Amino acid sequence: MDQKFKQIAKLFQRLPGVGPRQAARFVLALLSKPEHELTELGQAIQNLKQLISFCKNCFNLSDGNVCNICSDSKRDQTKILVIEKATDLDSLEKTGLYKGLYHVLGGSLNPLEGLTQAHLKINELQRRIEKTLEQYPSVELILATNPTPSGETTALYLRELFKEKEGISITRLARGLASGSHLEYTDESTLKNALEYRK
Amino acid sequence: MDQKFKQIAKLFQRLPGVGPRQAARFVLALLSKPEHELTELGQAIQNLKQLISFCKNCFNLSDGNVCNICSDSKRDQTKILVIEKATDLDSLEKTGLYKGLYHVLGGSLNPLEGLTQAHLKINELQRRIEKTLEQYPSVELILATNPTPSGETTALYLRELFKEKEGISITRLARGLASGSHLEYTDESTLKNALEYRK
Repeated sequence: MDQKFKQIAKLFQRLPGVGPRQAARFVLALLSKPEHELTELGQAIQNLKQLISFCKNCFNLSDGNVCNICSDSKRDQTKILVIEKATDLDSLEKTGLYKGLYHVLGGSLNPLEGLTQAHLKINELQRRIEKTLEQYPSVELILATNPTPSGETTALYLRELFKEKEGISITRLARGLASGSHLEYTDESTLKNALEYRK
Repeated sequence: MDQKFKQIAKLFQRLPGVGPRQAARFVLALLSKPEHELTELGQAIQNLKQLISFCKNCFNLSDGNVCNICSDSKRDQTKILVIEKATDLDSLEKTGLYKGLYHVLGGSLNPLEGLTQAHLKINELQRRIEKTLEQYPSVELILATNPTPSGETTALYLRELFKEKEGISITRLARGLASGSHLEYTDESTLKNALEYRK
């Protein structure tokens, strides 16, 4: 294959979950697009960090300084639900059940991949909690990192970090059987959790 | 979710096989990349058509005018293997079994998606064949479009187009059981072909 083509396809492999084949498909597909679409996509990528900014408070996606959720005074200011990515927030908001605030960590602890607490918005979370406790007697920290090894590690780390602090109650999203799943095909860890936390 | 974020994610949905979730993942992942990587990718996309060019003869990917394969005089000049995409060429070259030339159509006939013969390099194929027949008494046209409905339509169309012409023999890649497949899970159409073309 052409050298230049390979080079450009390699750039696309930096996208999460994209292997050499999909990268090659992307480049070929883009080659058949009109010039203006390439310009549009190319410029959006180049200016990405100028185009999309984060909420200064919770690090959700936002155009201005503080996001819609943080600036909504009707939401419970004493609940902070901690998630890994801004897209997780979207899934939770769709349920319409949660009326508190969020805090987007920007990932999970994964020392093997070089993701330590310094890469996550943990200091910012600490400061937020302190600020909240200045105004309110108590705050609930809901740990909603993914039920994956790195998500669990992160939850464990945050629990350790905050458990001694007065006025904080720490909860974690419930673990158990997913709706529509079959016992027969459910993994051991899920079954163990479903048994342990039965009610 | 943030409006600007959605807008940009939509641009990524133009890539083949990318849905709203993967597009959102792409944008989030890019946001955490260093600025120079965004510039690199963004510029490569904007200048894509200047960076990658096609062989004037067979429309394979090429940096110069004529690709390595077309300019290789050791290859059989009287065999033209017709494929849909340049990436198909790569798969065939890896087998090391084919020593003729290629012709990349740039897609397959799919009237429902607006892909007619005018979008494919069919006129160019006609001219190539005429030119080859000026130099050689005969030419073999190997139809290697995909065994999909639109690939089959394209092969059928090309066969009709060239069957009356003198000096052309038209062949099609064999159909049958794929290596490593199981009869039990093989679809009807494949079984039908495997039976029909048994030898």
